[in-house]
Amino acid sequence: MSLYLNLAELLGERIEQGLYRPGDRLPSVRALSTEHGVSLSTVQQAYRHLEDQGLATPRPKSGYFVPAARQMPALPQVARMAQRPVEVSQWDQVLELISLPPSRAGVIQLGRGRPDIDSPTLKPLLRSLSRISRRQDVSSLTYGCIYGHQGMREQIARLMLDSGCALSYEDIVITTGCHEALSAAIRAICQPGDIVAVDSPSFHGVMQALKGFGMQALELPTDPLTGISLEALELALEQWPIKAIQLTPTCNNPQGYIMPEANKRALLALAQRYDVAIIEDDVYGELAYSYPRPRTIKSYDEDGRVLLCSSFSKTLAPGLRIGWIAPGRYLDRVLHMKYMGTGSTAQAPQLAITEYLEAGHYEPHLRRMRAQYQRGRDLMIDWVSRYFPAGTRVSRPQGSFMLWLELEAGFDSQRLNRELQAHAIQIAPGSIFSAAGKYRNCLRLNYASQPSAEIEAAVRQVGLCAAQLSDADKS
Amino acid sequence: MSLYLNLAELLGERIEQGLYRPGDRLPSVRALSTEHGVSLSTVQQAYRHLEDQGLATPRPKSGYFVPAARQMPALPQVARMAQRPVEVSQWDQVLELISLPPSRAGVIQLGRGRPDIDSPTLKPLLRSLSRISRRQDVSSLTYGCIYGHQGMREQIARLMLDSGCALSYEDIVITTGCHEALSAAIRAICQPGDIVAVDSPSFHGVMQALKGFGMQALELPTDPLTGISLEALELALEQWPIKAIQLTPTCNNPQGYIMPEANKRALLALAQRYDVAIIEDDVYGELAYSYPRPRTIKSYDEDGRVLLCSSFSKTLAPGLRIGWIAPGRYLDRVLHMKYMGTGSTAQAPQLAITEYLEAGHYEPHLRRMRAQYQRGRDLMIDWVSRYFPAGTRVSRPQGSFMLWLELEAGFDSQRLNRELQAHAIQIAPGSIFSAAGKYRNCLRLNYASQPSAEIEAAVRQVGLCAAQLSDADKS
Ligand SMILES: Cc1ncc(COP(=O)(O)O)c(C=O)c1O
Ligand SMILES: Cc1ncc(COP(=O)(O)O)c(C=O)c1O
Repeated sequence: MSLYLNLAELLGERIEQGLYRPGDRLPSVRALSTEHGVSLSTVQQAYRHLEDQGLATPRPKSGYFVPAARQMPALPQVARMAQRPVEVSQWDQVLELISLPPSRAGVIQLGRGRPDIDSPTLKPLLRSLSRISRRQDVSSLTYGCIYGHQGMREQIARLMLDSGCALSYEDIVITTGCHEALSAAIRAICQPGDIVAVDSPSFHGVMQALKGFGMQALELPTDPLTGISLEALELALEQWPIKAIQLTPTCNNPQGYIMPEANKRALLALAQRYDVAIIEDDVYGELAYSYPRPRTIKSYDEDGRVLLCSSFSKTLAPGLRIGWIAPGRYLDRVLHMKYMGTGSTAQAPQLAITEYLEAGHYEPHLRRMRAQYQRGRDLMIDWVSRYFPAGTRVSRPQGSFMLWLELEAGFDSQRLNRELQAHAIQIAPGSIFSAAGKYRNCLRLNYASQPSAEIEAAVRQVGLCAAQLSDADKS
Repeated sequence: MSLYLNLAELLGERIEQGLYRPGDRLPSVRALSTEHGVSLSTVQQAYRHLEDQGLATPRPKSGYFVPAARQMPALPQVARMAQRPVEVSQWDQVLELISLPPSRAGVIQLGRGRPDIDSPTLKPLLRSLSRISRRQDVSSLTYGCIYGHQGMREQIARLMLDSGCALSYEDIVITTGCHEALSAAIRAICQPGDIVAVDSPSFHGVMQALKGFGMQALELPTDPLTGISLEALELALEQWPIKAIQLTPTCNNPQGYIMPEANKRALLALAQRYDVAIIEDDVYGELAYSYPRPRTIKSYDEDGRVLLCSSFSKTLAPGLRIGWIAPGRYLDRVLHMKYMGTGSTAQAPQLAITEYLEAGHYEPHLRRMRAQYQRGRDLMIDWVSRYFPAGTRVSRPQGSFMLWLELEAGFDSQRLNRELQAHAIQIAPGSIFSAAGKYRNCLRLNYASQPSAEIEAAVRQVGLCAAQLSDADKS
C-alpha cells in the first residue's frame, strides 16, 4: 500500500475511533509530516483521500477538521468469548433465512447477503450468457474439466495480481460459488473433531460447514475496526491443537472492517510458527471502497499454507454460482473434495464471465458498485442513527454492502425478525453469525440496493419495532 | 409393469443368457400361455415386444425363433469379492479421466459418461436458457431458496410418478447435479469409518465420495443381468454394521442392467429388516429402452429410508448441473449438507428446464434419445464383436449409453488407455469402477453419439490395440 494510503488509513481509524471529535481541528500537514517522516505532499494526498471518504473537511487557511455534522454512533463492542472450542448450533435460524425464495412480492429482504444486480454495467455479461446458453455445443453443455475452464482461471490469476498474488492459472480451481471453495478447503484440511479458529461474528455458511463436518469452532474476539485479535489467537494456538484459522479479513462479513496489512502479516507469521493452515475468504475483497484494493493474506504466503476462497457472487451475481479457490499446497486434496461434492462446475457461466473479463467490462462495473455501496453505507448509517433506539452501536464498513448493529444487552433480534414479518420485512438476526449463538442483540442490514423511499421506510420500521421491543422489555 | 412386459423380460433374459441358442425355436404361444397362466394375446404382445428388441424373429406358420445372425458375445463374469469393507483407492486414475477439457480437437472421448447433446429436441431448452439468462432480475440472478425452484420441484414430482413414486414437491430438493445429491445423501447418513455396501462394478463418483469422507466400501458381487446379489447382501448385513446400501439399480453404470422388480422389492425388505438406508441412484432411469420406464426402489418405500438421487445430466445435458434428491426421512440433514456444500443451486437453468418440462418437450426428447441409444448399443456390440479379441465379454445394456467389456484375465486397461493416447482415443479403464481397483481387465465405452465412421474406426483401433497388448503378454 502506498504511503499516503497508509497514513489516511491511520488517521481515518483515529477519527472513527473517536480520538478526534466532530468539529475538532485535525493535526496540521506540517505536524503530520514530521511525526510520520513523510513529505508534505504525501500528507496532503492523505487528507484529500479522507476528504473523499467524508472523514475530513478543509477550512480555508485553518487546515482540516472532523466534519461537524458527523455524529457517528458508537462502534459495536468486542464480544467476550468462552475461549474454548464449541460445536456449532443455529441451523434452524439459518434455514429460515435461506428458505426464502429469491423474490416474494412485497417482502423487503434486508437480511440476505445479496449484491445489487440491477446495474447497467452487468448488461454485457447477460448478453454473453444468453449467447453462450444458446450454443448447442460440447464446450458449454457437457462436463467441464475438474479444474474449471482454463480461460476463466487465467482471468482470475490476472485479477488476483491486484491483491498482490502472483499465481498462474494452474494454481486456481473453479468452484460452485465461494461456498464450495470454503467447504472443500475445510474438508481438505480438517477431520471431524478438529478445531478451527474463526473470527467472530462470522459468516454462517462457514459455521454451518464446520457443524456439518463435525468440527469445532473456536470463536476469537474480533475488533470492529481491525479484525481478529492476534493476542487472543496466539493464546489459543498455544492452548489448543488448532488445525486451521478461517477468516474474512478484507471487508469482513458481517462487520465490514479491513484487517490492516501489518496484522495480516502477523497472522501469517503466527500460522507459520504453529504450523496451521489459513482459510482466507476474500469474497468481498474487490468491493473495498479504497483503491487499489487491499492485499490478501495469501499475497504474503510463501509455503502454500493459505487457501484463498472467493467468488463472483458479490461482485457480479450470486445466481451464477461461480467461485474459485487457490489452495496452495492442498491442491490435490481440494480437487478430490470438489469432485465428490459436485463433480464439475457448470460451463456456460464460466465462458460468459470469461468473455466479460476479457472485454474489460469488470473494472468499470466494480468502480460503479464500490461507489454505490459506499454511498449506501453512509445513508444506511444515517438512517440507523435517526430511526433506531439511542445507543445502537454500528459498524464502519470499509467495503461490501452490509451493516452490523448492536442493540442493548438482552435485546432479541430473532424476536424482532418475527415481529417484522407482519411488515413484510426481513433482517439477519445476529445469532447466526456465532457458533454458540452469541450476538442475539445484534443484527445485519443489507444496503446493496439503490437507496429508495421504500427502503428508508423499511429501515424506519425496523427501528420502530426495535424500540418497541426494548421498551416492552423495560416495563 | 404390465403382464406382457413381464413375460417379455423373462423370455428376453433367457435368450440373452443363452438358454435358447441362435436359430432355436422359441416356446409356442400356446405353451407359454399355459405355463404362465396368461392369455394368448398377452403372449403375442410379449413376442412382438421381443421382435422389436431384435430378440425374436417370427417365421410364418412355425412360430418364433432366436435370430440366427445374433451371435452375442458372452456376458461379463460376476467378480469374486474380498467380502470385506475396504478403503477406496483409484483417485489418480479418476483424476486423469476428469481432467480432460470437454472438447479437445481430434480426441475421441469414449471414456466419459456423456449423453449426446446434439439432438434437435434440445433446441427449445436452449432457447429458454438463452431468454432467461438475458433477464436481469432477481429470480434468475440471486440466491435461490435452499430447496430449489418450486416449479422445478413440481415438475420433478410429476416425472417421478412414472417410476411409481407419489411425491409432492415438498419431498424434493434441487441439487448441483446428481453428484451433489449422492454426496449429500452419503453425508446425511454416514460418519467417517462407516461401512457402505455397493454394487460392483460401480460409479466412480460414489466410490470417491466414500473415500473422501473416510467411509469404507463393501463391494458386493453383482450379476450383469439382474444386479447386486441379494444373497451376498444378506450375508454382508448379518456380518457387518452396514449403514447404507448405495446402488444404481436401473440402467446401471457401468453394466446397463435393470434390476428386476422382484429383486428391488426384496432389497428393500432386507434394508427394512436390518434397518439400513438405501441410496438409490436413478440418473439413467428415464433412459431405459423399455416403456413405460421401470419402477424405482423408492416407489416401494414406505418408511422414508430410500434417498433417491438423480439429475438431468444424462437425459438433457451435464453442463446444466441440475439434479435432485428425494431424501425421505433424511430431509433436514440433506438440506444441511447441501447448504454447506454449495449454498444454493443456480437459478437460471432451473427456470429453463421448468419451462421445457411444462411445455411438454421432455417426453418426445426422451423417446428419441432412448431409440438412438438402443440402436447405438446394438451397433457398439456388433463393432466390439468384430474388432475385439475373441472371447471379449460384453454387457447387455437395457438402457443408458455405455458398454462394459471384460477382456481376458491379466489384461491391463490402464495400459491400453496409455497406448491409445497416440491415437487420440480415450476410454474408461475398469479399475476406477471398484473401490479396491478390481476390473483392470475391463473397460467402459460410451455409445451416446450418433454412429459415424469415425467412431467405428476408433472402436476398431481400441480393439486392435487390445489385441496387440494381449498378444504381447502371451509371447
Ligand atoms: C463471507 C462470505 N463468504 C462466502 C459467501 C458465499 O458465497 P457464494 O454465494 O459465492 O457461495 C458469502 C455469502 O453470503 C459470504 O458472506
Ligand atoms: C451412476 C451415476 N450417477 C451420477 C452421475 C453424476 O451425475 P451428475 O453429472 O448429474 O452429477 C453419473 C455420471 O457419470 C453416473 O454415472
